[in-house]
Amino acid sequence: MNKQTNKKSAIVLLSGGLDSATTLAYAINENFHCYALSFIYGQKHNIEIEHAKKIAKFYHISKRHKIIKLDKRLFLSSALTAKQNMPENRDLTQISKDIPPTYVPARNTIFLSMALAFAEQINAFDIFIGANAIDYSGYPDCRPEFIKAFEKLANLGTKAGIEGNKITIHAPLINLTKSDIIKFGKKLGLDYSLTWSCYNPQADKLACGKCDSCIIRKNAFKQAGFKDPIEYID
Amino acid sequence: MNKQTNKKSAIVLLSGGLDSATTLAYAINENFHCYALSFIYGQKHNIEIEHAKKIAKFYHISKRHKIIKLDKRLFLSSALTAKQNMPENRDLTQISKDIPPTYVPARNTIFLSMALAFAEQINAFDIFIGANAIDYSGYPDCRPEFIKAFEKLANLGTKAGIEGNKITIHAPLINLTKSDIIKFGKKLGLDYSLTWSCYNPQADKLACGKCDSCIIRKNAFKQAGFKDPIEYID
Repeated sequence: MNKQTNKKSAIVLLSGGLDSATTLAYAINENFHCYALSFIYGQKHNIEIEHAKKIAKFYHISKRHKIIKLDKRLFLSSALTAKQNMPENRDLTQISKDIPPTYVPARNTIFLSMALAFAEQINAFDIFIGANAIDYSGYPDCRPEFIKAFEKLANLGTKAGIEGNKITIHAPLINLTKSDIIKFGKKLGLDYSLTWSCYNPQADKLACGKCDSCIIRKNAFKQAGFKDPIEYID
Repeated sequence: MNKQTNKKSAIVLLSGGLDSATTLAYAINENFHCYALSFIYGQKHNIEIEHAKKIAKFYHISKRHKIIKLDKRLFLSSALTAKQNMPENRDLTQISKDIPPTYVPARNTIFLSMALAFAEQINAFDIFIGANAIDYSGYPDCRPEFIKAFEKLANLGTKAGIEGNKITIHAPLINLTKSDIIKFGKKLGLDYSLTWSCYNPQADKLACGKCDSCIIRKNAFKQAGFKDPIEYID
């Protein structure tokens, strides 16, 4: 509980993408006093961190937004971090079929673990993550069973948990389609021009339009019936 | 599998203390090609890292020993990291009664998560941790149920896991008393003069002899019938 606001404190994982931004919008709307964590782990598209900052500013939580640097040596085997080709121009069926090379080992496990440490430090028992198991890239750590397993672990492995302060991992988007996420965020008043989805590091100002993440996003805006406020090269 | 040695690769969490050193000795004895991870998380007794280096050198794995810096802002609420008094001169009954102020939120969850990321990067499916639930300081993340919950999470949340490469979290000391751990390490040829247990940062060269960790260690050597090769102020 935050003493000034008399609200429950919560930690929100904020990548700068549209899922995490929508999750933050939701947590604020649910009346949580939100802290946000963003991570630099060697991702080539670390421009997303600048967008995380913009989103935090939009929600007046810049002072409660921490950007955490992780040791890049742990994350070298992903197309998001290493010099290897990013898949391009795949259709949605291909994207959701297998775990793609953009998979980053244990990423959400690490992000949630760090959120857990920080939560315990500030007496927060609620952690929000924008994981989504419907229109996603086949990442194993975005599935409901993973989220449940982490919640169980969190309650077993912390002082807060074993003392009876139930720690909850909220994944409010887990069963929504990407277009439903956008509709949801729009209702909550989120400005999606602040978000960044593109994996392509060449696209500093414009999104590439070709990577899996761009393809999923473009398709979702189309389905949701909204104009995507960001610009694409293709 | 390591191609040069034809051994299975494993990650060992190595703090520089006697439990993790014994665990490394065990993993090497079990014929694993070991990589070690040590963490700097703001612990005042970061002299333990120098001891982790010595242990890695003793086992000829210095080149496979990574020291990972974590963001200290996540770990400010422990007597190990913050300016607060360390409990002193407690007896063993007091030490194991409650979770002490030296508890570090989510520490083993974070260490194991990072080991998991690194394991997946190098195609290792075995992670070793020196967690011990018998003569310990009441830490929730040193209990068998925590280790099992993490193993389950690891297999759900990784590509390796869902593709059928069973990830195993080995905690070979989990049910041993501290004196049995020492007897075990002695049989494995471990030199305990390389290890560091003291939480007291004033004791740069000599261990304080008063903190929980020193008290547990001194008592265990006595019970095991060996002389503790390190020196104490008290």
